[in-house]
Amino acid sequence: MTDVSPLDVLPGPISPNRASTQALAALIADLGDIPVVTDSTIVRRRSRDFFWYSPILNEQLNGKAADVIVAPRDEVDVVRVAAACARHRVPLTVRAGGTGNYGQAVPLAGGVLLDITALDAIEWIRPGQIRVGAGAKMNAIDAETQHSGFELRMHPSTKRTATIGGFVAGGSGGIGSISYGGLRERGNILAARVVTLEPEPRVIELRGDAAQKVNRAYGTTGIITALEMPLAPSWPWIDVVVAFDDFMDCVEFGFEAALADGIVKKLLAPVTWPLPSYFGALKSWCPEGKSILIAMIAEPSLESFKALLGRRGVMTLQTPTDDGPGKVPLYEYTWNHTTLQVLKSDRTVTYLQCLYPHDRLLAKVAEMRAMFPDEVLQHLEFIRFNGQVTCSGLPVVRYRDAQRLNEIIALHEAHDVHIANPHVYTVEDGSRYKRVDVDQLGFKHEVDPYGLLNPGKMRSFTASR
Amino acid sequence: MTDVSPLDVLPGPISPNRASTQALAALIADLGDIPVVTDSTIVRRRSRDFFWYSPILNEQLNGKAADVIVAPRDEVDVVRVAAACARHRVPLTVRAGGTGNYGQAVPLAGGVLLDITALDAIEWIRPGQIRVGAGAKMNAIDAETQHSGFELRMHPSTKRTATIGGFVAGGSGGIGSISYGGLRERGNILAARVVTLEPEPRVIELRGDAAQKVNRAYGTTGIITALEMPLAPSWPWIDVVVAFDDFMDCVEFGFEAALADGIVKKLLAPVTWPLPSYFGALKSWCPEGKSILIAMIAEPSLESFKALLGRRGVMTLQTPTDDGPGKVPLYEYTWNHTTLQVLKSDRTVTYLQCLYPHDRLLAKVAEMRAMFPDEVLQHLEFIRFNGQVTCSGLPVVRYRDAQRLNEIIALHEAHDVHIANPHVYTVEDGSRYKRVDVDQLGFKHEVDPYGLLNPGKMRSFTASR
Repeated sequence: MTDVSPLDVLPGPISPNRASTQALAALIADLGDIPVVTDSTIVRRRSRDFFWYSPILNEQLNGKAADVIVAPRDEVDVVRVAAACARHRVPLTVRAGGTGNYGQAVPLAGGVLLDITALDAIEWIRPGQIRVGAGAKMNAIDAETQHSGFELRMHPSTKRTATIGGFVAGGSGGIGSISYGGLRERGNILAARVVTLEPEPRVIELRGDAAQKVNRAYGTTGIITALEMPLAPSWPWIDVVVAFDDFMDCVEFGFEAALADGIVKKLLAPVTWPLPSYFGALKSWCPEGKSILIAMIAEPSLESFKALLGRRGVMTLQTPTDDGPGKVPLYEYTWNHTTLQVLKSDRTVTYLQCLYPHDRLLAKVAEMRAMFPDEVLQHLEFIRFNGQVTCSGLPVVRYRDAQRLNEIIALHEAHDVHIANPHVYTVEDGSRYKRVDVDQLGFKHEVDPYGLLNPGKMRSFTASR
Repeated sequence: MTDVSPLDVLPGPISPNRASTQALAALIADLGDIPVVTDSTIVRRRSRDFFWYSPILNEQLNGKAADVIVAPRDEVDVVRVAAACARHRVPLTVRAGGTGNYGQAVPLAGGVLLDITALDAIEWIRPGQIRVGAGAKMNAIDAETQHSGFELRMHPSTKRTATIGGFVAGGSGGIGSISYGGLRERGNILAARVVTLEPEPRVIELRGDAAQKVNRAYGTTGIITALEMPLAPSWPWIDVVVAFDDFMDCVEFGFEAALADGIVKKLLAPVTWPLPSYFGALKSWCPEGKSILIAMIAEPSLESFKALLGRRGVMTLQTPTDDGPGKVPLYEYTWNHTTLQVLKSDRTVTYLQCLYPHDRLLAKVAEMRAMFPDEVLQHLEFIRFNGQVTCSGLPVVRYRDAQRLNEIIALHEAHDVHIANPHVYTVEDGSRYKRVDVDQLGFKHEVDPYGLLNPGKMRSFTASR
């Protein structure tokens, strides 16, 4: 449990030094024709992300805002902004789609909110690879690459609004991780290009393992301007819902499907009743009282998937995946969207992020279910992790208070179910099993000597200058 | 060890009833214009397969031959031959490429050798699926499907001469099984069409799980005329050889690469020194004294593969896979070809087929290596099996006699390394972990009531009529 900081000893939000009004004015003057937004209503609104999933983060981060939004048009602009911020000692927090859940895009010390969404150009697409601006939306990337039979290996449930840069900076995995594992697996980020926060910013290409230095670092280790990502073959995917009388039967079948290497799939998510009762437009396919498995299966594998299922569950939905404009794809009921669907009508819930041990998966799920029958409502996502099939759990938790949430976390950990705590905003405290094995702190000293990049998010960092 | 028949209690080759000269003459008369070969030299030559890998099978099967070769031009011809064989009670053994290693194509009771290589038409290709005649060569299938970005999920090392029907009837897995598992995994055979051996033959379509009734049954459960197979995305593959000072380092790295879900691969085969010293044309890339890992890596994953390798081994070869006409691809040094490369210059060796337990893989490999340091020369193939990464072992064995071979087998089994014995010719005795979970015997009673299909190969069968 050494990685987990109990909530009751967590510090409140730190307040790194803010920039003076003079420094900000000087900075803005230095930016020339780079677009800037100073309207405080807009700046406050865009300084938020989905941290409000957590009542604890909501209390800590609500109201935190940048002083100014700066919207570079290209990497040259990014370098100019970085230089100006270094010169005037103004904090800089990168923001794109703003779909993160841990406050990664919330500036704790004001300063510049760097909106990188204009950096969305596709540099090139090769068979199995793409190089693209960090601000490109993931659904735009897939729309482009699918022409040539490819798509991103994995994406979060927010694919329609999230950017590839934001995913790498804060994600970890998602739809597709049942085949490829998470972003932390070698080969899932091929290269990253970052701009340093120095008076004379450097532009650094991080290839291979080195690219992990920006993975889930919330933008504290350089401003990502471009990414080289591996692509997967793009199958015609079929959205599937299967209803089960018993949640554990649903998990057991999901596990078999996850282990079936002859069946090509992108998503396998068991969701316990009563969570499907909150599923708005999907409710017609969620029979009363039934737990469901939400799946995406490659069309040529659907027959084999049904053969595996047999009569164990009832398939209530089977339709081609469509996440085109105006569509709500099935995956928007999975991963972090499952909790969101419930939050839409019940703001008293929150969630957790768990990693189950692969060698005792079913027993551990049953154990956690029995321990918190009505308080922790099971929602699992099958993934590969270190080459093994297991589950990430994103249960919906009926929230009482921080102390009880902390107890629930401690009880999971005590039973070998690891928690990546989504109720803290620092890289170190929230990462747990999502942590990558690379010296991000050392790299931060190289690229951000004044500690101006998203200050407060990398807790163990102390500015060297 | 209940599945393993010790060699010392194995029966000699059985001699099912042969057809009379009159019956054969009547049969041939009934065949009309279907091509027939009666030249005994040709018939004898084509009644063989690669059973001579095994000194034991060589003794038992050498000289066994059909009476006549019949070469149907299409399924209608197959039905006519089947009807005639049933009518005249003439045994029928299917033969295609003849690349099997267990005598599956060797007729134990004479009769008809059915050469189905003319049934090679591609019925259709759809994204991710193909329907094709059982006699189609696998390299011809890949050549056709690769136009549209697909290829067979797996193939044996004999891909350039073997047919898809022969692979399904006797194979089990091969190059590609590191990603998709073996043919026995659900989804790896989509459908099979078989002709029954009855006076009025039926043509049966076996879909999904039912198709497993013909998997590794050596043609005893119906004459396969067509197969529907799943296809994999066709990557530009890179042939790679990596040299290691120590074999166990080679295995350990191979295991890591096998578990790396972000690295797309088709082959990972550790081969201990001195086996590479037998590798003919490949020797220039096999440094003296080094064990090697033979691999096929998708081109976009090569950089990640090298990053994983680091300085642990030396990459001596890196070249695009080419199995076009006149080329010897790297995979012809792997799977059953590894042993063949040694047999080319040393006929005193033979081999085994092992399945290592996935949860104690490295320890068990080291244990077997220590137990038979000079007698059992390790050659492993990383595969997925029941959703887990493990190794199939195809070690080259310095052969002393049947008794010692049996001891070696028993010692492996006693240490939880399962052996699918390649020194027996019956489905039951040789299958072990390759056995599929379906009632092949019951199905044989339905489709071959007189027991005329490859008689003697399904030991537990007794003709019902």
